[in-house]
This record gives sequence, C-alpha cells and structure tokens, in this order.
Amino acid sequence: MNISKRTKIGKNSIIADTAKIFDNVVIGDNVFIGDFCSIGFKNKITSKDKLIIKKNTIINSHSIIHQNSSIGENSIIGHHVLIREKTLIQNNVQIGSYSDIEGNTKIESYTKLHSNVHIGQHSLIMSYCWLFPYVILTNDPIPPSDIRAGVIIEPFSIICTRSTILPGKKIGFGSFVGANSLVNCDLKNETIGSGNPFKIRGDVNLIKIPNTKKNAYPWIDRFKKDYPKNIKNEYSLLRKKCIKS
Amino acid sequence: MNISKRTKIGKNSIIADTAKIFDNVVIGDNVFIGDFCSIGFKNKITSKDKLIIKKNTIINSHSIIHQNSSIGENSIIGHHVLIREKTLIQNNVQIGSYSDIEGNTKIESYTKLHSNVHIGQHSLIMSYCWLFPYVILTNDPIPPSDIRAGVIIEPFSIICTRSTILPGKKIGFGSFVGANSLVNCDLKNETIGSGNPFKIRGDVNLIKIPNTKKNAYPWIDRFKKDYPKNIKNEYSLLRKKCIKS
Amino acid sequence: MNISKRTKIGKNSIIADTAKIFDNVVIGDNVFIGDFCSIGFKNKITSKDKLIIKKNTIINSHSIIHQNSSIGENSIIGHHVLIREKTLIQNNVQIGSYSDIEGNTKIESYTKLHSNVHIGQHSLIMSYCWLFPYVILTNDPIPPSDIRAGVIIEPFSIICTRSTILPGKKIGFGSFVGANSLVNCDLKNETIGSGNPFKIRGDVNLIKIPNTKKNAYPWIDRFKKDYPKNIKNEYSLLRKKCIKS
Repeated sequence: MNISKRTKIGKNSIIADTAKIFDNVVIGDNVFIGDFCSIGFKNKITSKDKLIIKKNTIINSHSIIHQNSSIGENSIIGHHVLIREKTLIQNNVQIGSYSDIEGNTKIESYTKLHSNVHIGQHSLIMSYCWLFPYVILTNDPIPPSDIRAGVIIEPFSIICTRSTILPGKKIGFGSFVGANSLVNCDLKNETIGSGNPFKIRGDVNLIKIPNTKKNAYPWIDRFKKDYPKNIKNEYSLLRKKCIKS
Repeated sequence: MNISKRTKIGKNSIIADTAKIFDNVVIGDNVFIGDFCSIGFKNKITSKDKLIIKKNTIINSHSIIHQNSSIGENSIIGHHVLIREKTLIQNNVQIGSYSDIEGNTKIESYTKLHSNVHIGQHSLIMSYCWLFPYVILTNDPIPPSDIRAGVIIEPFSIICTRSTILPGKKIGFGSFVGANSLVNCDLKNETIGSGNPFKIRGDVNLIKIPNTKKNAYPWIDRFKKDYPKNIKNEYSLLRKKCIKS
Repeated sequence: MNISKRTKIGKNSIIADTAKIFDNVVIGDNVFIGDFCSIGFKNKITSKDKLIIKKNTIINSHSIIHQNSSIGENSIIGHHVLIREKTLIQNNVQIGSYSDIEGNTKIESYTKLHSNVHIGQHSLIMSYCWLFPYVILTNDPIPPSDIRAGVIIEPFSIICTRSTILPGKKIGFGSFVGANSLVNCDLKNETIGSGNPFKIRGDVNLIKIPNTKKNAYPWIDRFKKDYPKNIKNEYSLLRKKCIKS
C-alpha cells in the first residue's frame, strides 16, 4: 500500500493505486489523485511538516506536490506538474500540465496557469489572472545570487504564451503582455506591453474582438466559463483596490 | 495487475509491468509500452470511448495517452509525453519527449515533433513536417476566449527551435521558420520567415548547405533516414496539391 | 521487486520501492533514487552496457537515466529529468527538473542547469557554468540533417533564462548571455551578449550589483553556496587556460 497511515483522507476521495502519499498530508472530501503522483514528499518529514489538499480538488497523473504547501478547494492540477515547498494556492485555481512552481509562492483564487508555466520563488500572482503556456516568472537580478526579487502580477492580468518577466517587475491590474515578450519594466494598470525589446503599446481597450469594434478587454463580459456569478462585483472591488486615481 | 481486462493486446506486444492500461484500449501487434505510462485514462470511461494504438508503435516511459485518440503504425512516442483526447496521429510519426498534444488535432504521416513541442487544440500538421524543440502552436486570438483558430502546417515545412505560431496562421508547403520566431502572418509556400518581429526573408533556396553552393531545401535529396523509398514521388504529388500556380 | 539482480548498490543507498533499476547499473554509496524513476533502461541491454551513478548523488522522482552514462559524485538530478545514452556528468553537478539531456554530451564539474534546460547531442558544457531555465543548446545547422555541430560553453559562463544557442557556437570563458537571446555567433571571453537579433553589449564588468558600483561578475566573490573553498584558484587556473593573451 502506497498511502502513509499518518495521512488523513476525506470522504469520497479517490487515490489511484499507484499514487504515493507520504506522511502528514491532509486530503479533503471528493479529492482525486491520479496514477504515479508523489504527494507530500520531503527528505525527512517531521511533525512540523504539513501538506493540505482541500475538497473537490483534482490532481492528475505523474504530478509531484512537496510538503508544507496548501492547495485550495475546487482546484485542478494537470499532469507532470511539480509544486515545491511553501506554495500557497487558493481556491478554484488551475495549474496546467508540466508547470513548475518552485515554492515560496502565492497564487490567488480563480487564477489559471496553462501548460508548462515556470514560477520562480517569491512570486505573487493575484486572483483572476491568466498565464499562458511557457510563461516564466524569474527572480534573480544578477544570477547566480541570493537576491530574490519576485514578480507581482495584479488581478485580471493576461500574460500570453512564452513571455518572460524579469525579476521584481510588476504587472498592473487588468494588463496584457503579448506573446514572446521579455518584460523588463513595470507595466501600468490596463496597459498593453509586448516584444523583445519590450515596448508599451497603449491602453488595453485598443484590442478588439476580431471583425468587430467591441473591446476584447476586460474579458469578463464575453468569457464566463467556470467563474462565479458575482465576477463583475469582484472585478469592480479589485479594480478599486489596485487603481487609486 | 495494471492492465484492464476490457482491453485488447496484439501479438508480441510488450507492456511494462508498471504501466497502467485502462478500459477500451486496442493495442496492435509488436507494440511496446514503457514503465509508468498511463494509457486510455478518462474520468468515466463509457462503451463509446476507444483508444487505438496500431502495430509496431513504441511508447516510452512516463507517457500519458487519453481516450478517443488513435496512434498510427510504426510511430515513436517519447518519454513524459501527454496526448489528450481526439488526437489523430497517422503512421510513422514521431512525438518527442515532453511534448504536449492538447487534443482535437491531426498529425499526418511521417511528421516528426522533437522534444517539448506544444500543440494547441484544432491544429493540423500535415505530412513530412519537422517541428523542432519547444515549438508552440497557439489557437486563441483574444485569450481567454472560446474561439479556437487552429494553426495549419502544410507538408514538408520546417519549424525551427522555439518558434511560436500565432492563432489561425498557415505555414505553406515546404516553408522554413527560423529559430525563436513569432509567426504573426501566413507564410507562403517555399518561403523563409524568421524573427520577432517576424519578417519574410525570401525563397527557401537561399539557404545553402554549409561551405557549398548547394541548396539545403528541399531536404529530401540529402536526408533519407527512416523515410520511404518513394519519398520523391510523394513530395511531387503533395507539392502539386498545395501549389496551384 | 523492481531492482535487477544484475545491478550493484553501494552502502546506505536508498532506492524508492516504486523506482525501477535495470541491469548493469552500478550505484555508489549514499545514493538516493526517488519514486517512479527509470534507471538504466535500454531496448536490449548487453554485457557491454553500463550505467554508473557515483556516491552521494540524489536522483529525484520521475527521472529517467538511460544506459552507458555516468553521473558523478555529490550530484543532484531534479524531478522529471531525462538523460539519454553517452552522457558524461562529472562531480558536483546539478541538473534541474524537466531538463532533457539528449546524450553524447559532457557536463563538467560544479556546473548547474536549472529547470527545463535542453541539451542537444554533442554539447560540451565546461565547469562552473550556470544555465538558467529553458535554455536550449542546438546542434543541427540545416535541420533535418546528419550534421551535429555541438555548442561549447567555457567555464564560469552564465546563460540566462530562455536563451537559445545556435549550432556550433562557442561561449567564451566567464561570459554572460542575457535572457531570451538567440546566440548566432561566438561570444568572446568575459563578454555580454543579448537579444534577438543578438548583439554584443561589451565587457562583463559593465554589470553592477544593484544600487552599488561594484562589479557583479565574476560572481565568485559574492556567491559561495556549495562551491569548494579553493574556487578562486580554480577560477585563476581555468581563466589562464582559456584566455591566452
């Protein structure tokens, strides 16, 4: 049997018979853990260590979650994912396959990472963001060093495929980073930036829905999949918090 | 035992003892499936679901193939691969390690994907193409949205390392996309494009074999490994189909 | 039991019960091999094949190491790594998670590869280098071909996140390649290069420690983690060898 006796598993949870669950893991109700997962590993687990996986969460096959992290309710973790120590994932988050969360990171509710996203330590990704495939958040301004200048991404931001964000940079509320960009400065709220070298391209309302004159952003009026009904209120509240002008 | 009884396995096929084969998988003769593979998974498999893996195909360790796909004869799937539902792979195809095929995709015969290629849904990759490491095919023009504008890659095209193709773009027959490009427009037949910003650089016959004046493309005269003997006829037929001028 | 009888395991070594160890593997003392690893695989292992894993080395879960390679002492291999045949890794090397070492490659002592680094065949990475996440070393100048022009990286070089080095290019001693670069020429000793298109930016002493006038490179005066005490002597010796002017 691959499940430690020092682990708690909630009602109706399904753990694949090839998955490995180490000590001090607390799994909520209705959780699914797929084949060949390694959950709660640490070199020497002591009584201080704890990994929490909350109710209704799905962890797909071949994924690894280390000790001392917390995965929120209703979250979906892809295949071949790696989540290292001290990662705090809130509710309703999605982490795409092959994503590599290096630890010491907070990912807030309703944020979605697509496949193969790399999150360096000390990143903060706030709620309702989208990070598309192969996005990288870095943290070391003079590599190698012990300096860790994490990236901050404010709510409702969109980081398109294969963009890299350099250490310590902040992406403002509701902003849009184009594909394959190398972000080397802070990006203001509701602003488009793209390219390598990186350039500010103007206000997000410049992007239109194809073949129309309608604004594509904010996306909350046109894309509702899996979001809460009160998303408009959430949007207004978070916008007010971030934009004080 | 990790192999479902509701699965058919052909003659001389080898399934590693740690691999997991779910219901409704049909495996041909002389197939090899490596350790820690997950083959035919789906949340709830019904009688309508089916995964076909044809004869002489090799699936290396730690790979995942979901239901309702088909993998052709003589194909090679690398390590740590993920192939999602409704992927149609024809014969003699290679899928490199860590590649992530998101589903709803067709990959035609003799096409080769190197390591860590990401294929968004609704892509069509025609025969005899090469996609090199870390190529990404995208599909969403205003992310996040429900629009899926898949990429089309015509036969004998070469997409070099780390290129990104934006949603709905078409790469013409026998064309060449340089490394690290961000393809934001259609590329005509037998044309070179590269860079970020992307630029058309001219006809593929501008690329020479190093230290010679010989054309490097089409490559069929100088590189024959694992291709059929009648590849020249195939090339002429497919060229005629694609180039109507 | 998943461990071949034709394999030697040293004292105090720990092999996870779900790991698979094939024939002709020689494992030193105090080695750790994590869950779901595949160690020493080859299609048909003959008496000529051999895989050596030296003492005090850690191989984390879900990693794959093929036959006819050698992993040095005190090395750390991440999760989900793939190391193919004829890879020679010296002592005190780190290979980050998801890294893909394609084989026929030498990685010298004290070099560190971060996550998701792709090393094409016939690469030579000398000692005390750093390759950051998603770096790619290529090898084929006219893909697809049988030409293999490997990349050479001299000691104490820094290759930042997501840089691509084109076939046959050499990075000189103590040089610095900025993030997201496409290196299309040789880079001299102690030189900065960056961008796509790639440009030489000057001497490495132009990079300062943030908010100071102190040089950031060479890094050996300011970053000592896990390096030998005599690193300064090593640096001087290797510098003399590489820089003959």
